[in-house]
Amino acid sequence: MPSVISTPPLDFVFHPASIAIVGVADESAATNSGRNFLNVLLEAGYSGQIYPVNRNGGRVRGLKIFRSLEEVPGAVDFVISAIPAPTAPQLMTECVAKRVKLVHFFTAGFSELGDDSSRRLEAEVVEIARRGGVRMTGPNGMGIYCPESGLSFMSGFPKEKGPLAVLSQSGAFSAYTIREAVTRGLFISKAISYGNAADLNEADFLDYFADDPATGIVAAYIEGARAPGRLPATLKRAASVKPVVLLKGGTSLAGARSAASHTGSLAGSGAVWGAMIRQAGAIQVEDPEQLVDVALLSHCLSRSGRNVVFIGFGGGVGVNGADLCSGLGLTLPEVPTEIKKKLRTIWPLEAGSSLRNPVDVFGGANKKVIADTLNIVAAWPEADFLVVHIPLYIAPASSAQLAGVYVQALVDLADQLRDRTVVVLGSVFSEASNRIVLDAQTSLVSAGLAVFSSAPRAIKALAKVVAYRLQHKGLASSDLSHL
Amino acid sequence: MPSVISTPPLDFVFHPASIAIVGVADESAATNSGRNFLNVLLEAGYSGQIYPVNRNGGRVRGLKIFRSLEEVPGAVDFVISAIPAPTAPQLMTECVAKRVKLVHFFTAGFSELGDDSSRRLEAEVVEIARRGGVRMTGPNGMGIYCPESGLSFMSGFPKEKGPLAVLSQSGAFSAYTIREAVTRGLFISKAISYGNAADLNEADFLDYFADDPATGIVAAYIEGARAPGRLPATLKRAASVKPVVLLKGGTSLAGARSAASHTGSLAGSGAVWGAMIRQAGAIQVEDPEQLVDVALLSHCLSRSGRNVVFIGFGGGVGVNGADLCSGLGLTLPEVPTEIKKKLRTIWPLEAGSSLRNPVDVFGGANKKVIADTLNIVAAWPEADFLVVHIPLYIAPASSAQLAGVYVQALVDLADQLRDRTVVVLGSVFSEASNRIVLDAQTSLVSAGLAVFSSAPRAIKALAKVVAYRLQHKGLASSDLSHL
Repeated sequence: MPSVISTPPLDFVFHPASIAIVGVADESAATNSGRNFLNVLLEAGYSGQIYPVNRNGGRVRGLKIFRSLEEVPGAVDFVISAIPAPTAPQLMTECVAKRVKLVHFFTAGFSELGDDSSRRLEAEVVEIARRGGVRMTGPNGMGIYCPESGLSFMSGFPKEKGPLAVLSQSGAFSAYTIREAVTRGLFISKAISYGNAADLNEADFLDYFADDPATGIVAAYIEGARAPGRLPATLKRAASVKPVVLLKGGTSLAGARSAASHTGSLAGSGAVWGAMIRQAGAIQVEDPEQLVDVALLSHCLSRSGRNVVFIGFGGGVGVNGADLCSGLGLTLPEVPTEIKKKLRTIWPLEAGSSLRNPVDVFGGANKKVIADTLNIVAAWPEADFLVVHIPLYIAPASSAQLAGVYVQALVDLADQLRDRTVVVLGSVFSEASNRIVLDAQTSLVSAGLAVFSSAPRAIKALAKVVAYRLQHKGLASSDLSHL
Repeated sequence: MPSVISTPPLDFVFHPASIAIVGVADESAATNSGRNFLNVLLEAGYSGQIYPVNRNGGRVRGLKIFRSLEEVPGAVDFVISAIPAPTAPQLMTECVAKRVKLVHFFTAGFSELGDDSSRRLEAEVVEIARRGGVRMTGPNGMGIYCPESGLSFMSGFPKEKGPLAVLSQSGAFSAYTIREAVTRGLFISKAISYGNAADLNEADFLDYFADDPATGIVAAYIEGARAPGRLPATLKRAASVKPVVLLKGGTSLAGARSAASHTGSLAGSGAVWGAMIRQAGAIQVEDPEQLVDVALLSHCLSRSGRNVVFIGFGGGVGVNGADLCSGLGLTLPEVPTEIKKKLRTIWPLEAGSSLRNPVDVFGGANKKVIADTLNIVAAWPEADFLVVHIPLYIAPASSAQLAGVYVQALVDLADQLRDRTVVVLGSVFSEASNRIVLDAQTSLVSAGLAVFSSAPRAIKALAKVVAYRLQHKGLASSDLSHL
């Protein structure tokens, strides 16, 4: 969080007092995108005025449908457009007349089509908006989600707010990022699926999120820079005040070709982007899963250092965990004699257990034994991070027993462990396992712990966060440059 | 499958006519490992003679407990030992007298402890076995799973058999590999969790699996070579007749230290192992998830080539998919005009859809539209592989609708698509999503299709299989050497 609380210039984007949705079918027609936006806003509990608009009039969800923006009696802060692209200039002209502050074009069919006339159409809409003092998001984006003000663009997004800002040039990725993050306990301050970025662009939103006191972490998916001149400095400023995790789309030729037809973006060179992101001190990730994984660990963990203690049940898990950690610049220090001695009081030299690091603690333990083990390891000052792996793919009854014992111990110790612990629920996606894993995940997430379903994913994300913190502490990170 | 059907020399390991379990507590005592093995064998439907043994006698599960091996009336092919390590030499002496063919020591507490006396104890047991003509697996391993003969070491493993042989120095990894593989439709021929490999070792089993007509693919987790002289040639021979997917444990210093205390293995140099695996033509993987992913694709896909068509719903997914493919040596060829023309009859130039590659097919489609799209793409001769991504993280109702439409189309076309198609169910692990994803997974797996829950995992596994096939076809694979 920045120390200076300001009212950032784009705050109006996320806090409109009234919304008109243009292109809402009435209840006699099949559902359409406009009605979908209306349903979602009502579900999200938006408390300002909502005005459905359609030139045919009618009623929907108990609301009058106005025939035009002009007909709307009050002021309109925000217009969501779900009408066909060719009618966009006309709508923007009406928005100027109505003194609308922001128009979001869900509407696609602009520059992403790649032909001159579509590009001209987009430019024309922007031109009308700029001359008339109206700002615009999209086109070809899903829109805005802001639980604080009851804005949403998709059914099922939670009303609870949190510290993660999501900035995404892809609608599906914004949905994935939001759902995956909230499922794992990381809630959202603001999210914007911004599509072609014809007017408001990645730099505008990064600037805003940098200053936004409600935002602690930024997760971004960007295909192309609409403000290439401003982006490096903006990214650097944002990354200097909070973690910015960035997935660049279109780093390959095939990806760039695809980005062009997705959001009309000029993807640019993957190498140049990589250098810019590194120089800015942001964290580049490879896929949307890693985007959420790294954002989650940036949120949950507050420790620094590169020492990891891997606590597992099952030797192979620890061996592979150690290999993965070592390959990514993380260190597994040997457990010192005095810690080993303490562990030995709990785990007498028992076949199948190893008290080195990885610490392989054999089964049959009760909650107290696991809690004591975690306490002893956590009290070791060199244990910067703990990765605790619980294998829930062994026999169903044993998995349930193991989950119960470990989860209870972890939840009880959550206050001590939260800032340094990554929990992995090793699992298989099956009817028999899902209930056990879901219950364990729910308990651990409620306790504020970072939970993963995959050790490789957990370790890769941890390595990214560790490298980021070393870089920002000014420590030697040259040997982590491959991250 | 090899063309010559032989009776391999280790067949007796997997097809014992009678089993004695030594160290079975009777029903008056708390359950123990021995009784667990008994329960599991009964659950697995082992049809040979089972003899529980414990010097205290008694009864368990309706069976008499014999006080010693000698007391057992009939011949004993296979002994499972769940007794403490110090009594192992005595047991082995009794096994020699009883002319037992194989002893599996679940018992831990041997060379993995790292001290001289434990190493001597292990050597002593092997010495007695060798002199007496008894073979041994373990110690410190879970044992054998062979659905064909009703052998198992863990509750819940299925009775259905399949083509995957699992060879694992880790018990937990063997459980993970088996459960993950069968959940995704790849069933098991034989699996062995072989622990310290004091007698029968990785080379013995690789030799056996190479010749085993019931085994089509081998997945192996190996920490150290007990037969370092034989292993390179054995691995090469096995990999020349069927895909061998290998996870090496202990490629790092910390991993090697951990392997030593896990199975008493000398892990050796990771680089040397990497070179050996490459020269043998086996497929090296990085983690247990990839072990199953690559085995699964080796099983499901029979095509070669490096051309991928990525079919998705949502542009970002395709952009990132293309980037991931390109980074791993896979090619996304542009869709040629004649195929595009055919697709255009289904997908008129519609905002939000792209008919290049990635093919981004927008929502709202019915089953026929998806089926026609898949048919047209599959008929393109240059489409070596199809990756079909279904995002089940959008609004719940839309996800359910999308799953229904795509899954039905894929299942209907499974006969044409099975040999080249990878289906990704993009998902979030939550109560709301799990039912939709599980139902989709079940239908697709039943139709014999390869299913993943993660696009990055799917693409990484596909790249490994593609590289392997190019190498084995003698085609240029130098640019795939990073795989």
